[in-house]
Formats: sequence, structure tokens, C-alpha cells
Amino acid sequence: MGLFITFEGPEGSGKTTQIHPLADYLRTEGWDVLTLREPGGTPISEQVRAILMNLANTAMHPRTEILLFLAARAQLVEEVIRPALAQGKIVLCDRYADSTLAYQGYGHGTDLDTLRRLLHFATGGLQPDLTFLLDVDPLIGLHRKRKEGEWNRLDACGEQFHQRVRDGYRLLAQAEPQRWIIVDAAQPPDAVQSVLRQHVLSRLRTQTAPNSG
Amino acid sequence: MGLFITFEGPEGSGKTTQIHPLADYLRTEGWDVLTLREPGGTPISEQVRAILMNLANTAMHPRTEILLFLAARAQLVEEVIRPALAQGKIVLCDRYADSTLAYQGYGHGTDLDTLRRLLHFATGGLQPDLTFLLDVDPLIGLHRKRKEGEWNRLDACGEQFHQRVRDGYRLLAQAEPQRWIIVDAAQPPDAVQSVLRQHVLSRLRTQTAPNSG
Repeated sequence: MGLFITFEGPEGSGKTTQIHPLADYLRTEGWDVLTLREPGGTPISEQVRAILMNLANTAMHPRTEILLFLAARAQLVEEVIRPALAQGKIVLCDRYADSTLAYQGYGHGTDLDTLRRLLHFATGGLQPDLTFLLDVDPLIGLHRKRKEGEWNRLDACGEQFHQRVRDGYRLLAQAEPQRWIIVDAAQPPDAVQSVLRQHVLSRLRTQTAPNSG
Repeated sequence: MGLFITFEGPEGSGKTTQIHPLADYLRTEGWDVLTLREPGGTPISEQVRAILMNLANTAMHPRTEILLFLAARAQLVEEVIRPALAQGKIVLCDRYADSTLAYQGYGHGTDLDTLRRLLHFATGGLQPDLTFLLDVDPLIGLHRKRKEGEWNRLDACGEQFHQRVRDGYRLLAQAEPQRWIIVDAAQPPDAVQSVLRQHVLSRLRTQTAPNSG
């Protein structure tokens, strides 16, 4: 049946840094693990990602942006995530539907109920089993990203936008505590990694044994 | 206030061939005319078009396809069509929302009510004032396109698909006779052009005089 785990959080919260060591750890524990990032993860979704991340596309309307994120996600769900889960894999995904609610909903002010209906269409209703919110002050996060030279069209929004995104994430997590785990991402990376491993192992203990077990 | 006219019909029905002489004619009559084609018409929408038309993207899921068409359309509506209409222009658009209902709805079997809600989101509710259905047997249309060497990912669907699209278009036109005009596109191009001019002039007569008038 697999396990679908998503990683959410503001820019620079360390999602990418955390996912790969977590995947490596789970593999040494005998699990079959797939790591993905959104938008992207399939040839078609990567083509859509290139449009979304292109700094030259400043004229992009908020509704266009939403629909492009959803298009990339629909393809990823059907081509990669559902088949992997059907094969019993652990899927670790860097961003998923909650990013749309946080960024386009709370951040840009698009109606949340409308977004939820669109997300249901795009994902065919597929929800994560577990979602980590790597929570960090947006000023710290954006500073980290700038230092790393990673900068895209969305990062160029204002400070208040990123604060609304963070607040939105926290509201989403509070509304569904059985699915979300809020992790303090201002901690050193090793401490964050340790929290993630603990929660994933605890969740796996309630599932079947690893493939090699 | 402008006039928003869309052209619909199966592949090879002659929409592109007809729009440009119609635009030229209306310009000589003193109207300010803008011609557009879907998907496309803005730099972002053209980037989306390239993904949709790429024959290599065979793995594209129907929901991805729908969302990409909607993304290209959302951008076109906000960046080009609404501003042009606000300037009093006549906008001639090669395909619009009805293409989604015909191709993805009737053709691929996606629920029509779901599609209508998605279309409402993407277009912000903008409807054409007048829609021409260039109606032609799909076998004739596809034969024309192949002869012209114009062939894309969607044309590679089966014959029955294209028959469902044609039937769907006719049902849409019958359901909204005040907006649609069905034109027999098996006629010689000059005859089709003459019918189009007649209907547009008749519609314009009920509007204000041309810009130069």
C-alpha cells in the first residue's frame, strides 16, 4: 500500500536538504523509497516547472499560476505517485497540494474552497498519509535561499506575502493534526533530521515490515 | 465594449484559413480587429502550447491536458482578451472554452459539469458574444490537415474520438442557439467566408458604428 509523505514549508525551510538524508536512512532500513519534488518529477511536469520558475514570466496571472501547478501535479500523481504507492513504496514529496493552499490561497488571497475543489480534480483526491511542516521565520528562510544563489519567480514576492504563507501553513496544520507534524526548522539540520526519522519510523511501525524484512 | 467572436470546429475545418481574411475584411470596414489562436496568444500561453502540441508528450494524462489548456486560456483572457474588449476591439479567437467541452468533455469523456466549473475559474466567466461552429465530417477535416503537413499530438487520437468531438460541438451549438452559428465547412472556402461576414456584419449592425465611422 505504500506511504505518502509530503514536506511543506516556506522557502529556505530546508525541505530539500532534509529529504535526501531521510530517504537514504530509510533505504538502509530496507524500505523502497522514492523522492520527488514539486512542481516536476515527470518529463511533462518538468516542462511546466520551467514555465513557473522562469523569472521572465512576470506577467503570469494568479489563475494561470494555479492551473500550471495543478497540471504539473496531476501528471505527477498519475504517472509516478499512484503507481509507486501501489508497489508499496515510501514516497517523499517536496511540496504537494498544501503548497497551493498556502501560496495561492493564503499568500495570494484566492478563495480556499475554490482551490480545494481544483486540487481534488487535479489529484483525483489523493491525500498524503503524513505531512511535515518545516516551520521557519520567512526572513530566515529567504536569507538562506539567497545565500545559496537559489532564487525563482515566486521568491521575488514581498515579505508580507511570505508571512501570510507561513501563517497559512500553520492554520492548515492546526486544522488537521492527525496528518501534519510541525517541525521547528530553525534548529540545526541534524536535529530536524532526527525529528523527521522519529516520526516516520513511528508511522512505519504501525504499517507492515520493510520489503527486505 | 468590443465584440468577442470565437471559432470552433474539428481539426481541418478551416478555422485558421477563415479568420484572417475575415479580420482583413473587417479592418477595411473600419473596425479594430485582433486575431488570436488557442492555446497561445501570450508568451506564457505559447510556452504552454509547446507542451500540449509536443508529439513526444504521449504520457500526458487527460486531467493534465485539461489543466494546461485552462492555464493557457486564463493568461490569454487576462493579458489580452479583456483589455482588447475594454478598448472596443473585435476579438476573433481560433478556439476557446467550447473546445475544452468538445475535446476533453465529449471526446475524452470528462464530466461536463466539472469542466464547466473549471472553465469558469480559468476564464473568470468571460463568454463569447458569438461562436461559429465550422462543421465538417472529421474524416474530411483530418485528411485536409494531413495534406497540409500540420499534425499534432491531439490529431493522433482515433477516428471515433473525432466523431464524438463533432457530435459534441453540435450539441453545444443546439443548446445555445442565440450564441452559436453552425456553418457548413464542407463548402468552398469563399462560400464559408461569405457566411461568416454576413453574420458578423449583422451582429455589428446592432452595435455602435466602427471606430473610423
